[in-house]
Amino acid sequence: MEPVNLDESFASFDETWAPRIAAELNDHAVKVAKFDGEFVWHAHDETDELFLVRDGRLRIEFRDRDDADLGPGDLLVVPRGVEHRPVALEPTEVLLVEPTETLNTGDAAESDLTHDPERLS
Amino acid sequence: MEPVNLDESFASFDETWAPRIAAELNDHAVKVAKFDGEFVWHAHDETDELFLVRDGRLRIEFRDRDDADLGPGDLLVVPRGVEHRPVALEPTEVLLVEPTETLNTGDAAESDLTHDPERLS
Repeated sequence: MEPVNLDESFASFDETWAPRIAAELNDHAVKVAKFDGEFVWHAHDETDELFLVRDGRLRIEFRDRDDADLGPGDLLVVPRGVEHRPVALEPTEVLLVEPTETLNTGDAAESDLTHDPERLS
Repeated sequence: MEPVNLDESFASFDETWAPRIAAELNDHAVKVAKFDGEFVWHAHDETDELFLVRDGRLRIEFRDRDDADLGPGDLLVVPRGVEHRPVALEPTEVLLVEPTETLNTGDAAESDLTHDPERLS
């Protein structure tokens, strides 16, 4: 039960689109992730997903509504089942809150971008 | 499905020890709260509770282990059932992640400090 520092967490890895578990509570986790450029279109049929931008600029595109533009300190919840595509307009640091086992690419076909969440070492 | 800005959220209220719901996902919420001084000893028997300090200095005291000292960017999960007392050493802004309906004073007797979580207006 030691505090985790977000700056140290983000400094501990470089890989983009590969969320790390920073902390777990109940069946949910706070994950830290680095985004850059375009991700894949996907949805999470079983869970809502919260994005909180720590640094950078994140656009979240939707099929059927206006894009959401998030800067530092902005958060957004994408409801379950809503197809979306994160696009980082510059190297961006993001906190995610979602069930621990949530796969980053959701219902999209597995690809090089698919990562099981891993714990911070 | 509009982004929420944390600076604006914290600027929208002054009351201490009265968490506001900034966003909800599944059965959990991200809440924003202002702490100052000593809170009451309590535990949450049904849920873990995550504290993330946005600004200020937060000490979390425990009955049976060393205190945890958190500054900006530090987060800590207090497991369910663990008695704790938050003490803000200066005016402090905190994000909480926990089930939406979690009562701030947990199993402590209801007092002037007890607040049902309310949504940001």
